[in-house]
Amino acid sequence: MSALQAPSTPPTVLALSGGIGGAKLALGLYRVLAPWELAVAINTGDDFTHLGLHIAPDVDTVMYTLAGENNTELGWGRIGESWNFMQQFSRLGGEDWFNLGDGDLAVHMRRRQLLDDGLGLGAITSRFYASFGIQAHAWPASDDPVRTMIATADGRRLPFQNYFVGEKCAPEVRGFSYVGADHASPNAELIAALNDGNLRAVVICPSNPFVSINPILAIPGVRDALRSCRAPVVAVSPIVGGAAIKGPLVKMMTELGQSANARSVFDNYRDFLSGAVIDSVDMDLAESLDVPAFVAPTVMKDITDRENLARAVLDFADGLSIDVRETG
Amino acid sequence: MSALQAPSTPPTVLALSGGIGGAKLALGLYRVLAPWELAVAINTGDDFTHLGLHIAPDVDTVMYTLAGENNTELGWGRIGESWNFMQQFSRLGGEDWFNLGDGDLAVHMRRRQLLDDGLGLGAITSRFYASFGIQAHAWPASDDPVRTMIATADGRRLPFQNYFVGEKCAPEVRGFSYVGADHASPNAELIAALNDGNLRAVVICPSNPFVSINPILAIPGVRDALRSCRAPVVAVSPIVGGAAIKGPLVKMMTELGQSANARSVFDNYRDFLSGAVIDSVDMDLAESLDVPAFVAPTVMKDITDRENLARAVLDFADGLSIDVRETG
Repeated sequence: MSALQAPSTPPTVLALSGGIGGAKLALGLYRVLAPWELAVAINTGDDFTHLGLHIAPDVDTVMYTLAGENNTELGWGRIGESWNFMQQFSRLGGEDWFNLGDGDLAVHMRRRQLLDDGLGLGAITSRFYASFGIQAHAWPASDDPVRTMIATADGRRLPFQNYFVGEKCAPEVRGFSYVGADHASPNAELIAALNDGNLRAVVICPSNPFVSINPILAIPGVRDALRSCRAPVVAVSPIVGGAAIKGPLVKMMTELGQSANARSVFDNYRDFLSGAVIDSVDMDLAESLDVPAFVAPTVMKDITDRENLARAVLDFADGLSIDVRETG
Repeated sequence: MSALQAPSTPPTVLALSGGIGGAKLALGLYRVLAPWELAVAINTGDDFTHLGLHIAPDVDTVMYTLAGENNTELGWGRIGESWNFMQQFSRLGGEDWFNLGDGDLAVHMRRRQLLDDGLGLGAITSRFYASFGIQAHAWPASDDPVRTMIATADGRRLPFQNYFVGEKCAPEVRGFSYVGADHASPNAELIAALNDGNLRAVVICPSNPFVSINPILAIPGVRDALRSCRAPVVAVSPIVGGAAIKGPLVKMMTELGQSANARSVFDNYRDFLSGAVIDSVDMDLAESLDVPAFVAPTVMKDITDRENLARAVLDFADGLSIDVRETG
C-alpha cells in the first residue's frame, strides 16, 4: 500500500470543519495525530457552480491548509498563486466578481471533469488530497448539493457566495436555509465513523455555525449519528471576547438578535455536545454553559498555537468519559 | 464611433494567414497600413476542442502578435505568461500534453462561454480583437468546423494537434484532409472583400500551405472568389533556401515527394496567383515560376524586417496590373 492511500483502519478523531478558521485547527489535529488518524468532514454549503466549474471553497481550503500550500499572505487560496487567468478573462468581458487564482482554477476544472465522468465529490476529494500528499481522510459532508442560502432583511434569498463575496456580507441577515439538504445523503464514511465504537473524539472546529457547521448538521442522519455517537463531541468557539476571528459571524448573530458569544454558538450543538472549549478571555462564560467547559488560548496565530490547541482539545475530550456525557 | 469599432468601409488589403510565420507578415502589414485597412483571414484547421474549451491557435497567435502581446521568448503564446494552471492540473491527473498558459486559458474559456451563448467564431473573434485594441479586421476562415487531418505512412489519420504537439511532427506524412470543409460556409466578410472591386491586394502570408492556407482554400467559395478576384494575389514563400523558417513544412514536402522549395509551395495557389515573393537566396527559382516573381529579404527577424517586407509586398502587388495577371 502506498503511503498516500487511505488505510482500511478507521480514523480515531473526526473533525467537522468549514474553511479558514476550521482549517487552522484541522491542521493542528493533523500534525499532532499519526497519519490517517484524522478525518475531516467538510462543509459543502458554500459550493457553487461558476463558469461551468464546480467550486468547493471549504474542501479546497482544508486541502491547501493540510498540504501546507495555503496562501498565508492573502488568508485564502493557494500559495504562490498567480492571477493571469482572471485578468485576461475580465478583459474579455468575462465574469470577474469571484476571483480565481490560476493554480486554484485547475482544481475546479479537474473536479468538473471528474464529476462529468461520473465520480462523486467524495471520491474526487480523496483523489485530490492524495495528490496533495495529505495523509488524512477528507469527506465532503455529502456528494449531493447542499446550498446555504441567506435570507436578508430586504426580503431576498441570496446564495452564500453572492452574499459573502458578491455583497461583502453587507445585507442584514434574517435566517439561513440549506437547499437540497433534505434530499441529500450524508457521506457514508462520516456516518460510519460516528457509529464506530472506537472513535476517540469528535471535534467541531471554530467555524461559523450558520454557514459552516449547520449545513453539515442539516443533512439527514448526521445529527442523529452525533447524538448517538459514543465518543465525546467537543466544540471550539469561533468567537473570542465577543469578536469572530474572521468573517461575519458576530454581525450575523447580532442581526439575528442573539448574544454574540460562545454560548450562542454552542446552542446550535446543544443536543449532542459533550464539552466546550472557550478562550481564556471568555472564562466567565464557563459556568453558564450546559456542558463541561475547557478554557484555553484559542487564537491560533502560528503553527505552535494550532498544535497546542489541538492537543488541549484532544486531552479535554479524553477526559470527558461517556458517563460524564450521559449525565452532563 | 469608438476607435476600436470596425468602420463600415471595407479593408483595402486582405491577408491569408496561419499562425507564427504568417502573423509576422500580418504584423508588418498592420503597421504600414492605416487603421482598419488590413483584414486577416485566418486558418481554423488547427482548432480543436480540449478540456471542453474551444482552442483556436492561429486566431489567437495573430491576435497576440498584432496586439504586441506575443511571447517572443517562447515563439508562441502570450507575453508575460504564467503556467500555474497546467502545473496543478497535471498534478491532479489532468491531461497535460497540450500546454496552456494561465492568461491564454482565459481566451479559450471565454470563447467557450460565448459559443455556448450562441455567438459564432467570427463575431467572438471581432470582440476579442477589439478587447486587445487591434484596429484590423480578423476573420476566422469559417464559423463552421474545418479540421486538418494528417494521413500518416503507418495508416493513421491524426488530428493536427495530435500530430503537431502530441507526436511532435514525427510521423511520416502521406496526405492531408480538411474534415468539415465541404459543408462549411466561408466567412461572409472574407468573400465580400474578395468580391470588392476596390480591394488593393490579397497577400498569402508565408504560412505552411498544407496546414495553414489550404484549409482556408478548401472551404467552398474561397478558391472561386480568389480566382475571380480583381485585385492581385501575391504569395510570400515560407521556404527560404530549402528550409522552412519554422515548422515541419520541408519535412512534409519531402515525405510527399515534392521538391522542398518555393515553387512547390506556389503550385498550391497556381489557379489564382498573380505574383510570388521569394527570398534573395532563392533568386535562381524566379525564372521557373509561372507568375512574376519579386525577390526580397523574406526572413523577418525584427519589426523593421516585417515592415520592410510588408511594404515590398504591397509595392509589388501594386505593380501587378490586372492585365499582367490575366496574361501572366
